[in-house]
Amino acid sequence: MPSLPPDPLDIGGIAGFGRRLRKGDITAASVTEAYLARIEALDPRLGAYQHVSADSALSTARALDGLLAAGTDLGPLMGVPVAVKDIFAVAGMPTTAGSKIDVGDLIGPEGSFVRALRRAGCVILGKAKTVEFALGAVGTSRPRGTPWNPWDNETQRAPGGSSSGPAVAVAAGLAAFAIGSDTGGSVRLPAALCGTFGLKTTVGLWPTDGVFPLAPHLDSIGPLTRSAADAALVFAALTGAPAPVAEPLGGLRLGRPENYFFDNLDAQVESCTAAALGALEEAGVEFVPIDVPEASEREGYFPVALPACLIAGLGRERFLAGRADIDPVVALRGDRGLEVTADAYIRLERRREDLCRIAADRMKDLDGWVSPTAALVAPPVAQFDDPDVGLKLALAITQDTQPGNLFGQCGTSTPIQSYGSDLPVGLQIVCASGHDAKALSIALAVEEVVGIPPGPDLSGFAA
Amino acid sequence: MPSLPPDPLDIGGIAGFGRRLRKGDITAASVTEAYLARIEALDPRLGAYQHVSADSALSTARALDGLLAAGTDLGPLMGVPVAVKDIFAVAGMPTTAGSKIDVGDLIGPEGSFVRALRRAGCVILGKAKTVEFALGAVGTSRPRGTPWNPWDNETQRAPGGSSSGPAVAVAAGLAAFAIGSDTGGSVRLPAALCGTFGLKTTVGLWPTDGVFPLAPHLDSIGPLTRSAADAALVFAALTGAPAPVAEPLGGLRLGRPENYFFDNLDAQVESCTAAALGALEEAGVEFVPIDVPEASEREGYFPVALPACLIAGLGRERFLAGRADIDPVVALRGDRGLEVTADAYIRLERRREDLCRIAADRMKDLDGWVSPTAALVAPPVAQFDDPDVGLKLALAITQDTQPGNLFGQCGTSTPIQSYGSDLPVGLQIVCASGHDAKALSIALAVEEVVGIPPGPDLSGFAA
Repeated sequence: MPSLPPDPLDIGGIAGFGRRLRKGDITAASVTEAYLARIEALDPRLGAYQHVSADSALSTARALDGLLAAGTDLGPLMGVPVAVKDIFAVAGMPTTAGSKIDVGDLIGPEGSFVRALRRAGCVILGKAKTVEFALGAVGTSRPRGTPWNPWDNETQRAPGGSSSGPAVAVAAGLAAFAIGSDTGGSVRLPAALCGTFGLKTTVGLWPTDGVFPLAPHLDSIGPLTRSAADAALVFAALTGAPAPVAEPLGGLRLGRPENYFFDNLDAQVESCTAAALGALEEAGVEFVPIDVPEASEREGYFPVALPACLIAGLGRERFLAGRADIDPVVALRGDRGLEVTADAYIRLERRREDLCRIAADRMKDLDGWVSPTAALVAPPVAQFDDPDVGLKLALAITQDTQPGNLFGQCGTSTPIQSYGSDLPVGLQIVCASGHDAKALSIALAVEEVVGIPPGPDLSGFAA
Repeated sequence: MPSLPPDPLDIGGIAGFGRRLRKGDITAASVTEAYLARIEALDPRLGAYQHVSADSALSTARALDGLLAAGTDLGPLMGVPVAVKDIFAVAGMPTTAGSKIDVGDLIGPEGSFVRALRRAGCVILGKAKTVEFALGAVGTSRPRGTPWNPWDNETQRAPGGSSSGPAVAVAAGLAAFAIGSDTGGSVRLPAALCGTFGLKTTVGLWPTDGVFPLAPHLDSIGPLTRSAADAALVFAALTGAPAPVAEPLGGLRLGRPENYFFDNLDAQVESCTAAALGALEEAGVEFVPIDVPEASEREGYFPVALPACLIAGLGRERFLAGRADIDPVVALRGDRGLEVTADAYIRLERRREDLCRIAADRMKDLDGWVSPTAALVAPPVAQFDDPDVGLKLALAITQDTQPGNLFGQCGTSTPIQSYGSDLPVGLQIVCASGHDAKALSIALAVEEVVGIPPGPDLSGFAA
């Protein structure tokens, strides 16, 4: 692929881009052009984007170059091209929420988070694909297409979901970073399956106006980036907090669940996780065996509460009227949502509130909990052709992320496939509610030990 | 009734009691004895108490007298005898929640609010009757009996609910004050119908552990007292905040809803309210006509959400197994709770969150909203023999209180029957969420204008 420009952030990530931008070596426009060229070359096959706004991205980038030249520096994200999950309204772009059904009334106009991206100087390249209604951990989508996991050119493998497009865009260098959302693992899982870094923030850190509401009490916005260092910059720029710095690993106490989280792991996940934990232990991290018997309660919560929330949001009339156009797995889950009674739902929510307290107690004296992000490496999407099989695999793949959502935690997924897997593997560290900066500080320290693995070989994907 | 001692708080309320206690004119024990004698004489007919703990009250009072004599002053509630609604666990006393069905597992041991009462030096006389499961605005109860509204010796009239016993106990001088709870009006309505002062606090001001959970996101604890001045003392003692003082009436801006809240008023309610508002206007209050079109949405919310919450709390198995023992009106409402779907419930709750924001916007630039507390004066309980009629009357009686719960507000009910009604009439002033101290400051100022009406003639009730 002679005409494919290199990913402009391959050297030094967002910080390196910022230094070269301010030195005058590159411009926001040139970097945006490079990403647009890469999208044009790679995305026909990868399908990470639902919509690309080349013109508005280029004119924004040029205006930002002019602004910087005239002496106004908007900060570390100025001129950085970003992809936004297609459940966020972005002015001037269509929003599908991964569906053929119109749900624009539930999303409304561009919200405060996307406005914050703009004020920070980001260049919005376009909308990245999502699982329909953000309800699905695997990343498959019949209505709008399943992005291709760039780690396997021959067999189409699941990108993870529901932020499937954002993960593929970052993994394949089709954006400097991407914005996803996480209700049951939807940032961390695609990050793990595509080999990027992912930050799942505490619910409420960023308001979700202008975002498709799946379950507002669980929905959280989070960036997918090529490194913890990039995520720390994004976090700082969009919260106004100081940029997190690496936590010293000596003295760090991480709970290592003895139950559930390490069950039924793929061989590569097991070996990479063991190797990464060994390296971290050598670097001074103390792993404390803990028991989290409540983790399995996610199996009773998510398959009931999320579909009920989806039906409440859509309205049962809209769901039933549009059911034939809905992805078959999402439709099956929606069917279940039609049958949930109010008292069953209320009991689940009351129990969830208890679980948040119990988990907070279990987190005391610990800096976080460590586990694999996903028990599996990316499965071939052909395995999901049967919706019932799809539901079962989705249950397996969310084993380690859903407890964090149920418990009100925040967390990160760090790629650790360099410990010996040909497919990406993620290491998850979750922290207590509100400790987002700390989660990033830990992830920065972990990254110093495990490194940033190289991206996938994209040579077979070019158009 | 020659042997009936006078209500020890007739002179000067809680503050007067405290002065006389510290001067040595009276003791906590003598005051407790007086209340116990009044309960013995009056409560066989009034039925305000579900349980009286004479021995523990007297021994507590004597111990408090000893403590004060030895130099430890617990503050303004020291030695003050109180009745607690029978949905609060109190160590050493049974808790029925107004039911024949055992719900002790839902209530648990004595909670932080009752412990705070004890630490403030209160003498707990006993448990005051409640509508079953606190679900009912009228105050009737087949399983545990309906307290008799002390304002009519001949016709048994509704005391208001669900804090029926607390209101009757305070109105008849069977306790210095009482503790109730308010989910849809359950402090304010019995206060209005029995002619006492009532404070509905913001949800979360006091934690509700150890209290029967009807709808935890709406349940609020509140005192029923003989005056706003007493309520201010109770509030200050139990929050640790400074005691609220009367707000200057000049410059006070109160919204007066043009719609809904003044619909279908009983003649006495209409005339007393008009006269009280006239007096307040003369004293400098500015009444601002406002429109609250969302108020009527309480009719769609409460008959659906509260029963669903009740069924969720009890569990449908317990409800169905015990249905024959449940009050017929409560059982009818519970039946409805069995049929609510999760999506319908979730939509109601999402709308409620919107309504809280809308109401907060409408409250901007206003100190509160004024209205009658109840559109009706206490109806004869015979009218509630038919459960369907009972449900309709309950809908009418909650017209003005339920919007405040739906909107997340706090508020007060001040007795204003001295403007010309033989039955009690309440004036409600609601304030924005969290402005409990301000609600009391306004009520204190209102009380300076409208006065504290004399209590009912109890001569016909003595055993």
